[in-house]
Amino acid sequence: MEQRHYRIAVLGGTGAQGSGLALRLAAAGHELTIGSRDAVRAGATAAQLGTRAGKAIAGSDNRAAADAAEIVILTVPYAVQRATVEHVLDQLRGKILVDSTVPLLPPKVGTVQLPEGRSAVAAIQELAGNDVRVVSAFQNVSAQHLVELEHPIDCDVLVCGNDRTACDVAIGLCADMGMRGLYAGTIANSAAAEALTSVLITVNRRYKVAGAGIRITGLPNS
Amino acid sequence: MEQRHYRIAVLGGTGAQGSGLALRLAAAGHELTIGSRDAVRAGATAAQLGTRAGKAIAGSDNRAAADAAEIVILTVPYAVQRATVEHVLDQLRGKILVDSTVPLLPPKVGTVQLPEGRSAVAAIQELAGNDVRVVSAFQNVSAQHLVELEHPIDCDVLVCGNDRTACDVAIGLCADMGMRGLYAGTIANSAAAEALTSVLITVNRRYKVAGAGIRITGLPNS
Repeated sequence: MEQRHYRIAVLGGTGAQGSGLALRLAAAGHELTIGSRDAVRAGATAAQLGTRAGKAIAGSDNRAAADAAEIVILTVPYAVQRATVEHVLDQLRGKILVDSTVPLLPPKVGTVQLPEGRSAVAAIQELAGNDVRVVSAFQNVSAQHLVELEHPIDCDVLVCGNDRTACDVAIGLCADMGMRGLYAGTIANSAAAEALTSVLITVNRRYKVAGAGIRITGLPNS
Repeated sequence: MEQRHYRIAVLGGTGAQGSGLALRLAAAGHELTIGSRDAVRAGATAAQLGTRAGKAIAGSDNRAAADAAEIVILTVPYAVQRATVEHVLDQLRGKILVDSTVPLLPPKVGTVQLPEGRSAVAAIQELAGNDVRVVSAFQNVSAQHLVELEHPIDCDVLVCGNDRTACDVAIGLCADMGMRGLYAGTIANSAAAEALTSVLITVNRRYKVAGAGIRITGLPNS
């Protein structure tokens, strides 16, 4: 399959996970914009990441970043997930929104606490309506590993969404970043990836490791 | 650590998953009883499995099986999980109940559908009260692989429970069966393992494989 380069915005891209995804996607040739509530901070992070990626990265406020993109990746804390999506909703119409949100409720981040609707990302699909194709991905990938460009990532990405074409696009982005993305079902199944994050946090603590991940076994190349 | 042999009942042990667990546990030296609503059927399955395990396995109705055991493993369909536990509740007092239940709601078994309480196994801990130590395990292990005694199982077992000693006992049973059990948090975290089963069913369908499983990466021996 021919590799396509997309215009991608990473909202909350000044955080560790967003920065890691932006870094790897830019290094793979995509056109990246870091989005943040603070455009100045977005610009500073973008400049740093661009130097590391060997490719210029833009920075702007979340709405302008979303507006300029074909694909929007959301990497903000759960507490501001909904507000951030509402803020950029008009800019998301007709696009793919890749949401990596995990409903962690500090301080008990090692305990699964799914919201009433069961999946934080599925709730966003309901909020955004059908002209935004929401894909869930990246919940289980260690931010620490993402930001180290030379670090191979020993983790599969569970990709969930109601639109299979949008899921395939996200799976392609995973491959561009050196990860295996797997179709894991409709958006409701995001609950599994979201819940797993608390399990991985628990595993990190219990077994004194950093950045536990998951692999799906039983597939031809695993 | 010295290997201890336990008296173990597998309720719903005439099914594929229960039979597989009983077979492997008996082969590892434990004293097994197959429990079923139908004592005659339990006896027939027990006789067959005992021959394969090279060690006699008993069979009886669920209540008698639970009564005779130190550890009770529950492998019944979600639809009868609660009724089965209520039926044997008096026989569970003071014991470890290892519950492998997944809240699958046919026909959409590839879609995560966690119950209101979020975890089907956590609901059983609430039902049973604190003198039954409920441990969640085995949701993600392919029954097909379990029943083939010579088949190495390429799947980790997420072990959740509020009692760490009980979790360690279950992790020991995993090792006896040739699997790696990992402490994955308190009983609420069973939601992750339960949700993952629908993801694995989806992966099996999407990628045309049988018996996809999971591995936790980033640990010393993984």
